[in-house]
Amino acid sequence: MYEDSAAFKTLGARYGNRFSRSPALRAQHGGGETHHAIAAPDAVLFAENTEEVAEAVRLCAAEDIPVIAFGAGTSLEGHLAATKGGLSLDLTRMRKILRVSPADLDCTVEAGVTREDLNAYLRDQGLFFPVDPGANATLGGMAATRASGTNAVRYGTMRENVLSLTVVLANGDVIRTASRARKSAAGYDLTRLFVGSEGTLGIITEVTLRLHGIPEAAAAATCRFPDLVSAAEAAIAVIQYGVPIARVELMEKRLVDYTNAFSGLTLEGGDTLVFEFHGSGQSVEDQVATVKDIVADFGGTAFTWATTPEERSRLWKARHDAFYAVLAARAGSKGWATDICVPISELAASVALARDLVEKAGATAAILGHVGDGNFHVMFAVDPDDADELARVRSINAELIHHAIAVGGTSTGEHGIGSGKIDYMREEFGDAGLALMRAIKTAVDPKGIFNPGKILPSA
Amino acid sequence: MYEDSAAFKTLGARYGNRFSRSPALRAQHGGGETHHAIAAPDAVLFAENTEEVAEAVRLCAAEDIPVIAFGAGTSLEGHLAATKGGLSLDLTRMRKILRVSPADLDCTVEAGVTREDLNAYLRDQGLFFPVDPGANATLGGMAATRASGTNAVRYGTMRENVLSLTVVLANGDVIRTASRARKSAAGYDLTRLFVGSEGTLGIITEVTLRLHGIPEAAAAATCRFPDLVSAAEAAIAVIQYGVPIARVELMEKRLVDYTNAFSGLTLEGGDTLVFEFHGSGQSVEDQVATVKDIVADFGGTAFTWATTPEERSRLWKARHDAFYAVLAARAGSKGWATDICVPISELAASVALARDLVEKAGATAAILGHVGDGNFHVMFAVDPDDADELARVRSINAELIHHAIAVGGTSTGEHGIGSGKIDYMREEFGDAGLALMRAIKTAVDPKGIFNPGKILPSA
Repeated sequence: MYEDSAAFKTLGARYGNRFSRSPALRAQHGGGETHHAIAAPDAVLFAENTEEVAEAVRLCAAEDIPVIAFGAGTSLEGHLAATKGGLSLDLTRMRKILRVSPADLDCTVEAGVTREDLNAYLRDQGLFFPVDPGANATLGGMAATRASGTNAVRYGTMRENVLSLTVVLANGDVIRTASRARKSAAGYDLTRLFVGSEGTLGIITEVTLRLHGIPEAAAAATCRFPDLVSAAEAAIAVIQYGVPIARVELMEKRLVDYTNAFSGLTLEGGDTLVFEFHGSGQSVEDQVATVKDIVADFGGTAFTWATTPEERSRLWKARHDAFYAVLAARAGSKGWATDICVPISELAASVALARDLVEKAGATAAILGHVGDGNFHVMFAVDPDDADELARVRSINAELIHHAIAVGGTSTGEHGIGSGKIDYMREEFGDAGLALMRAIKTAVDPKGIFNPGKILPSA
Repeated sequence: MYEDSAAFKTLGARYGNRFSRSPALRAQHGGGETHHAIAAPDAVLFAENTEEVAEAVRLCAAEDIPVIAFGAGTSLEGHLAATKGGLSLDLTRMRKILRVSPADLDCTVEAGVTREDLNAYLRDQGLFFPVDPGANATLGGMAATRASGTNAVRYGTMRENVLSLTVVLANGDVIRTASRARKSAAGYDLTRLFVGSEGTLGIITEVTLRLHGIPEAAAAATCRFPDLVSAAEAAIAVIQYGVPIARVELMEKRLVDYTNAFSGLTLEGGDTLVFEFHGSGQSVEDQVATVKDIVADFGGTAFTWATTPEERSRLWKARHDAFYAVLAARAGSKGWATDICVPISELAASVALARDLVEKAGATAAILGHVGDGNFHVMFAVDPDDADELARVRSINAELIHHAIAVGGTSTGEHGIGSGKIDYMREEFGDAGLALMRAIKTAVDPKGIFNPGKILPSA
């Protein structure tokens, strides 16, 4: 489609091989990392700055051509499928770190900078950016998905760590959503309007972020539990006690085995919590002592330390690669990751429900999660060509989402809605809430050019 | 106006003396605590639940009658003026604490509950809600203004501490903006859409809040500095060092004198920082030792402790009453409080500019602020009938706002825009940003019934 559009002709003439209609490139830009079907865009533009993005949006808007932002391509819920064709705006060449202010603990980066690149750049200055989804995603994509990760329990998600955004609107206007001030009571919260909007309201081209000082002391430890629910209950107790834990991650015993195999770790077997403690030396010691007392009440044993930066990095790299470790356990499989988040008092029962559903279905899957936030995943390794199996996983996914919403939680803690969870939006927000979201979408993107078919179900 | 409307007739018949057109009551509902002119609404309805609010909104919307939510009436920027008349929806009878979950560290309250009432209720459970504007505001009003206070540097503002809202929309629909989950990537951030919307997008009737455990140990101290800029620089250094300080407040020497007089304190004179430390006993001791080292570099002396809960309460009550202390220094005056917030690296220069402007103008005023966030106020005690004096203060206010925006800050850290700062919105957000806010306003409140004349300047 759109090959005869004035927009594509202009972009092709202006940008040469930065504008491409190659089928392989288009297919690569039309899917993420999971089982969701690929829907290729009609062309890909590698934009290099905000003005180029604005110009492309203006050209596409004039002919109602869909525009879909593309970063690292690590979406898990079908965000990138060009369900109505159109232009994929690849932002990965926008990878300049524009400004770092150690005095203000903030920075501004182009949308295509990845979290690992940013942290490599910051390390020498004693700073880090904490939000860490499993993938090495771009910061623009992380903002658009309201991403989170293992550090959120202490440092917050993209919701809390984005200070301001530069956004290209549907009419080609470029706005800055907020100042660099830590807080503001000035007007509508445009920053949070775009954080989590999944490319459906505008194209994020620059991101201003809060940074944090690398803690004076840090320590990580794994701890084994007699069963999954005991591990979850121990994590809940740590949070309820008020320990300012930096990370507390649940790994089901199957995942421990998969991860040992995939990442060459030598974790002891069994359902496991992985802790990280940040603070002054004394504060870390205090936290560790408290946590050791708490976990003992839940049968936690084999507290094993990763104290050197290298050991800690290796442990967390393995944790971040958990998704790939599950896939590696079943050759030729595709991933399907559920993502519910519940009030923490409901976590143990929710994890138990997930385990029962997975065992009953005999699925290749593992439970893991950012349990300090009440957020956990079931990572399924599915045969994408087995319709029966997909239906079984879909049914487990649906049951977990119904459960999460019923107990005061959400269908997605951090992966987003995309197309994968669009059918649960009504259940979570009701007709009136959905109507409000639709009104906002229509007001901000009247022609519906931005990432159509995502977040909002058909009316 | 509107006395013959079907809406007012129906409300009068249905609610008896809960619907009032008394001139005194109307005037009291048309102003806040500062110099801004009162504009009385045409009637006041004391609503008792969400359904009554929804019914009143439906009736008013049918005849395009403005609706203005009213809580404690402690607005500082003219939010409550009924510039086009209409109905004041008084929510102060909605003061039920609906639910507290210590296990999840959250609660749900009706919009008319005040922050002090909530904290009195929570104390026995070892919990507290940290956001503390000077006034004993309602939690609905605090959400609507995106309020903040002395604890924000450690615990965040209403932006971070509201989990979910119940909101009545312009068509009378009632929505819940989000679940109780700590984080979510589901759809547009409706919660943050209403936090800070100042009653212009809907009426908040219930608020679900994050709570925090009362820290194991807490200590507060005052420390005197040779001058205002040294005090500001010491605060900056404490933040930049990464001390997890709970509060760090700047009080100009004049304010120390006013506060001693108004609140019966016996603080030593001079430009002062007030610190509070929260944590485990050891952690508090570590923080104190670090801060003592840092402040000594800036000439800080006379570190004076308030260790008992009673002494701490007295100190912070006096700090919260600073606005009234300044007013008491000049009989018959009205308050005018500026509220800029800048990146912390710009704080010392901004405070110095404010001091110079105030001294040059010979105004009765004092500088104070939540300097850990880069947010500070100049509290002016003005003669509301002296046009020349008001013009001088307006000019200082404008100069500070221009400065704040120029250095990457905002016109208001926590007081909101109301009508008082509406003329600076274009400077802060640009034409495109304002146009986006207008599009949102029109989409969510198509007839413009909610709190007209606030936030958005005339096009």
